[in-house]
Amino acid sequence: MSEPLFERVAILGLGLLGASLAHAVRRGGLATHIAGFARSPKTRARARELGFCDEVCEIAEDAARGADLIVLAAPVGAFAALAETIAPVLSQGAIVTDVGSVKSAVVRDVSPHIPDGVHFVPGHPIAGTEQSGPDAGFAELFDGRWCILTPIGAAEDDVAHVADRAEVEKLAQFWRGCGSDVDFMDPHHHDLVLAITSHLPHLIAYNIVGTAADLETVTQSDVIKYSAGGFRDFTRIAASDPTMWRDIFLNNREAVLEMLGRFAEDLSALQRAIRWGDGDTLFTLFSHTRDIRRSIIDAGQDSAVPDFGRHAKPGDDEQ
Amino acid sequence: MSEPLFERVAILGLGLLGASLAHAVRRGGLATHIAGFARSPKTRARARELGFCDEVCEIAEDAARGADLIVLAAPVGAFAALAETIAPVLSQGAIVTDVGSVKSAVVRDVSPHIPDGVHFVPGHPIAGTEQSGPDAGFAELFDGRWCILTPIGAAEDDVAHVADRAEVEKLAQFWRGCGSDVDFMDPHHHDLVLAITSHLPHLIAYNIVGTAADLETVTQSDVIKYSAGGFRDFTRIAASDPTMWRDIFLNNREAVLEMLGRFAEDLSALQRAIRWGDGDTLFTLFSHTRDIRRSIIDAGQDSAVPDFGRHAKPGDDEQ
Repeated sequence: MSEPLFERVAILGLGLLGASLAHAVRRGGLATHIAGFARSPKTRARARELGFCDEVCEIAEDAARGADLIVLAAPVGAFAALAETIAPVLSQGAIVTDVGSVKSAVVRDVSPHIPDGVHFVPGHPIAGTEQSGPDAGFAELFDGRWCILTPIGAAEDDVAHVADRAEVEKLAQFWRGCGSDVDFMDPHHHDLVLAITSHLPHLIAYNIVGTAADLETVTQSDVIKYSAGGFRDFTRIAASDPTMWRDIFLNNREAVLEMLGRFAEDLSALQRAIRWGDGDTLFTLFSHTRDIRRSIIDAGQDSAVPDFGRHAKPGDDEQ
Repeated sequence: MSEPLFERVAILGLGLLGASLAHAVRRGGLATHIAGFARSPKTRARARELGFCDEVCEIAEDAARGADLIVLAAPVGAFAALAETIAPVLSQGAIVTDVGSVKSAVVRDVSPHIPDGVHFVPGHPIAGTEQSGPDAGFAELFDGRWCILTPIGAAEDDVAHVADRAEVEKLAQFWRGCGSDVDFMDPHHHDLVLAITSHLPHLIAYNIVGTAADLETVTQSDVIKYSAGGFRDFTRIAASDPTMWRDIFLNNREAVLEMLGRFAEDLSALQRAIRWGDGDTLFTLFSHTRDIRRSIIDAGQDSAVPDFGRHAKPGDDEQ
């Protein structure tokens, strides 16, 4: 058994991501001690019952004090206050990171609170489920998923010249120990990439579920009953944590509005094609999108197993 | 073993739906003989190899001749020509049905070709996967899914007074034998319900995949690599059969444009909320959509198993 990478890892926020990280850290033997903190007494009590941390603290400072790795795992809107709270107790040489889904805003909110001699390396594991809370956590969440680190002051893909290169490498090693592949990006590019691959998909999923709920010509019971034709897949995405997602949209506004503008433009063109009965335009788009699906499966980022028949296929692990 | 419900079932179209139906008919012992037809020689050859029909015919008339149940299972754009082709060989008392995703247009296209003494009962099993072709078929596709019948001349939910009530009941029994629950609707209402639960979800999934493919600021390789944040779920929907979906949009134009208009309106409101930093509006919508998800799971139309972690959860049936 090799030496753990960190002595004391503090995880601030014990929802799906924080709890999964604690499980993964323990599975990987990456820390001697895991200290957790959650703002809600209910979450703290449940985290103690589940036992994925060695210690669950009442206040964030107690978890962060003496830690050599501190992970912010709350909704990103809470990061500024959290960073300010823990700043006075941070040890020299400690690494502060996060799992937030936006990066420019996190750099803006957290950096000012980081004391000299402490290394802030923002991060984002591209992993999650539609569930939330400490019970939803599991060690395998990060396996085979990408974790993007956005070191401060690094040009894109160039971490060789950042000031805290050793700490960036150590954090990368930590995420690999959690099962992830690690990539480097600058925060602005990260926010653009995630706006199209994650934030816009969530926005339009939330939106269509809202549209369906407000119809007068079709009842909500019809929508629910016949949801297997595609709608149910959107409701799964739209079941993600509301606070987390509110904070994401408020904190990646420019990139989301940019992608949303393009999406709306393209949708108008499709609308026109339908109105004018332009089958060729429809067929060309619908054929092209299949290739992208194939590339995603080839890249190991999704399964080729048909999922729409998920209640009906023999051998499914349904509950 | 009870008597099969039909002597000879003709399935015209042997893609995902037609092949699955043949498997389900055989599993349920619902026909003495299953005759299949597909337009493409490649599909016919493959269907013969897979053996889910007792007979695969070169021309539609040969499959339909002498059948007491004929199922149109081609893309809906092909229905008018198919109905015209088989009309001369249809037996008196036979039932013609279909599995098309739109119903008003099917009634419009098919009814004029149905001879007196033949019963046309349009239908739509709400089931499918993102795959297509005869290899994608499986007997369990319809288990626990709804099949909607839209009998000609029936007021909504009132099949007691249609002229061919006995045939409608027999067809309902057939679908129950395939594992489905059966519902009745008028074609217009069906098309509205499906526009929101299936057609619009597919349209916006196709659209976002197209938007992502056209960006200059984010490469296609970035999109593919980091698709686990939500985008990959849309590509799964957008991988559905292009011909089938072109025909659906061309044949349910009014209802799709109506739902699309509402969706676009709601999206503009969300866009405004993001631009003005209105977190309360976002939070309220994002919380409400969770309830609908819960109702869909309670109605048995989706699984509560978290799916986003699908590559990472132990015990998954990934390949």
